[in-house]
Amino acid sequence: MKTRLTDAFDLEHPIISAPMAFAAGGKLAAAVTQAGGLGLIGGGYGDTDWMERQFGRAGNARVGCGFITWKLAEQPQLLDLALGHAPAAMFLSFGNPAPFASRIANAGVPLICQVQTLRDAQNAASCGAQVIVAQGSEAGGHGEKRGTITLVPEVADWLAVNAPDVLLVAAGGIADGRGLAAALMLGADGVLVGSRLWASAEADVSQAMTDAAIAATGDQTIRSTVMDKARNLNWPDRYTARVLRNAFTDRWHDDLPGLLANAQKQADAWRKAWMAGDPEGSNTFVGEAAGLIHDRPPAARIIEDMVAQAEVLLTQAKGWTG
Amino acid sequence: MKTRLTDAFDLEHPIISAPMAFAAGGKLAAAVTQAGGLGLIGGGYGDTDWMERQFGRAGNARVGCGFITWKLAEQPQLLDLALGHAPAAMFLSFGNPAPFASRIANAGVPLICQVQTLRDAQNAASCGAQVIVAQGSEAGGHGEKRGTITLVPEVADWLAVNAPDVLLVAAGGIADGRGLAAALMLGADGVLVGSRLWASAEADVSQAMTDAAIAATGDQTIRSTVMDKARNLNWPDRYTARVLRNAFTDRWHDDLPGLLANAQKQADAWRKAWMAGDPEGSNTFVGEAAGLIHDRPPAARIIEDMVAQAEVLLTQAKGWTG
Ligand SMILES: Cc1cc2nc3c(=O)[nH]c(=O)nc-3n(C[C@H](O)[C@H](O)[C@H](O)COP(=O)(O)O)c2cc1C
Ligand SMILES: Cc1cc2nc3c(=O)[nH]c(=O)nc-3n(C[C@H](O)[C@H](O)[C@H](O)COP(=O)(O)O)c2cc1C
Repeated sequence: MKTRLTDAFDLEHPIISAPMAFAAGGKLAAAVTQAGGLGLIGGGYGDTDWMERQFGRAGNARVGCGFITWKLAEQPQLLDLALGHAPAAMFLSFGNPAPFASRIANAGVPLICQVQTLRDAQNAASCGAQVIVAQGSEAGGHGEKRGTITLVPEVADWLAVNAPDVLLVAAGGIADGRGLAAALMLGADGVLVGSRLWASAEADVSQAMTDAAIAATGDQTIRSTVMDKARNLNWPDRYTARVLRNAFTDRWHDDLPGLLANAQKQADAWRKAWMAGDPEGSNTFVGEAAGLIHDRPPAARIIEDMVAQAEVLLTQAKGWTG
Repeated sequence: MKTRLTDAFDLEHPIISAPMAFAAGGKLAAAVTQAGGLGLIGGGYGDTDWMERQFGRAGNARVGCGFITWKLAEQPQLLDLALGHAPAAMFLSFGNPAPFASRIANAGVPLICQVQTLRDAQNAASCGAQVIVAQGSEAGGHGEKRGTITLVPEVADWLAVNAPDVLLVAAGGIADGRGLAAALMLGADGVLVGSRLWASAEADVSQAMTDAAIAATGDQTIRSTVMDKARNLNWPDRYTARVLRNAFTDRWHDDLPGLLANAQKQADAWRKAWMAGDPEGSNTFVGEAAGLIHDRPPAARIIEDMVAQAEVLLTQAKGWTG
């Protein structure tokens, strides 16, 4: 396929993999790049050893790296470490990219900013982002409230007038060729795919969590903060995380005071279950796209199928015009 | 344009107007039908005189009628009244359509059910709905949490296997040709448009509220229950309403107990402002699509522009396949 995104990053397909904390290691990122997309390592909360290992696992594949912006602000030295690997792109989400933009620009690395509102898209453009990822609330993991189907065209309109060279990528709920084709119609130059690639052979995700997502419909996810509160992660209030509903969210989602009253105990149990990859005792981070995920194939097959389906739809599209 | 929806209802365009309480009277419904779509009168909470007047205003235009299902259950006689006008379709949303389906079928009137989850889509199909409208959270007015971009393809997949003759329409955030084209890509046979037609010349909406929506970005809406609590409307807990944020929602959204403590006074003030069409003292019901709305043209022009833009996109779509 051919869009401004494939041109700018010399890709075969306008598909970027989401830098998913813990799940998107060097293996997944490399597989996505090798399949013709742009693979990103999920730098997440920032762990030097883990990150170094992931760049190692990516080998010679041209991959980028993402950070959770407010967390990077607590340990800004990690940025230089990542830039030292000459990443294909730096990806920042969840916080103001301004303090980091010039170091990234000076390193000659393209800056991709994921945003959840029009206002933040405007800020990202003013920070010099080459690519803005408009992330809708359907997305797995952290995010906010706006839906993909309105955020993408609204950001597209603003960019067309104010920053026409900035590329736009849609994220949130895109898991197959229908989502890819729809995103292009909405004005995006490509898509960022999280959940669908999270359920791939190369993702660092337990089989039990993958199976839980495969079994779930899209009705069974929830945006909540209880996992973050229990883990004592200082996420800014505006961000919630989408996970599969389970006994943990059912018990605590509407009882934050109760959770905080015995936070340490709950956190210990949650973390223990998380380390074991247990979708009952901890939470499975996945989006509404869970309802569109029915297997765990290699990333390359996910990307091939997505592109093939989109190509069929785009080729037949003229038929609707009667 | 040509889809299964235009075939089934003998339309020129695969566009249905939302049966918006108060805003979608006979004038808007007739204008939409005359423009080649399917216009629906918003029966809303059920007011016999109002409804009779609206069917009168629609004149000879072939329009349908919508009801809020849980409210219709309180005054089921309204259904016969509506059916007496031989509507082009009956539209039910927000509650179980089962108690009404057979009367509608016996009258030979097509049943359109709007749903907010996969589970409710399954129920609607089992009730014999000819059309299922999958409504995403971006929508103006009442709704739930799922996003349009995942709900539509997930319902499409389920229908393809279990009820392939049931048509699927996308709702929530669709305000221009990009949204229409995207909805078709996602697997819908057409779209239901609320907010964009709410801001039309024929809608029964105050100019001040329309102006407030035009001035707003999509970031400035909120889903809340405070308007319903203040008005003493017994909406089931699962439904919230999307409105423009204003002083009223800022004050009460996070303080429901405070609101209920002086509900009568707040309700009186809210209703008075509502009657005056005042977007400050009451709330403007509109979706995230507010950020895509910049004027208040006649409904026919909205539909023409939407179709023209979609046709361009669909015609050019093959270009992306490189
Ligand atoms: C398991 C998981 C972990 C995620 N972790 C991060 C993260 O660390 N940093 C980030 O910017 N986004 C993260 N995200 C969000 C993605 O960047 C992306 O917006 C999202 O996955 C897109 O929606 P989708 O899941 O429906 O494809 C995560 C998503 C998932 C599913
Ligand atoms: C002002 C307003 C009033 C609405 N009232 C109703 C209603 O009475 N019954 C109903 O089924 N849906 C109602 N809706 C929701 C619509 O049916 C539809 O799902 C929604 O408008 C679609 O999303 P959009 O607003 O982004 O186009 C209303 C929507 C708006 C904007």
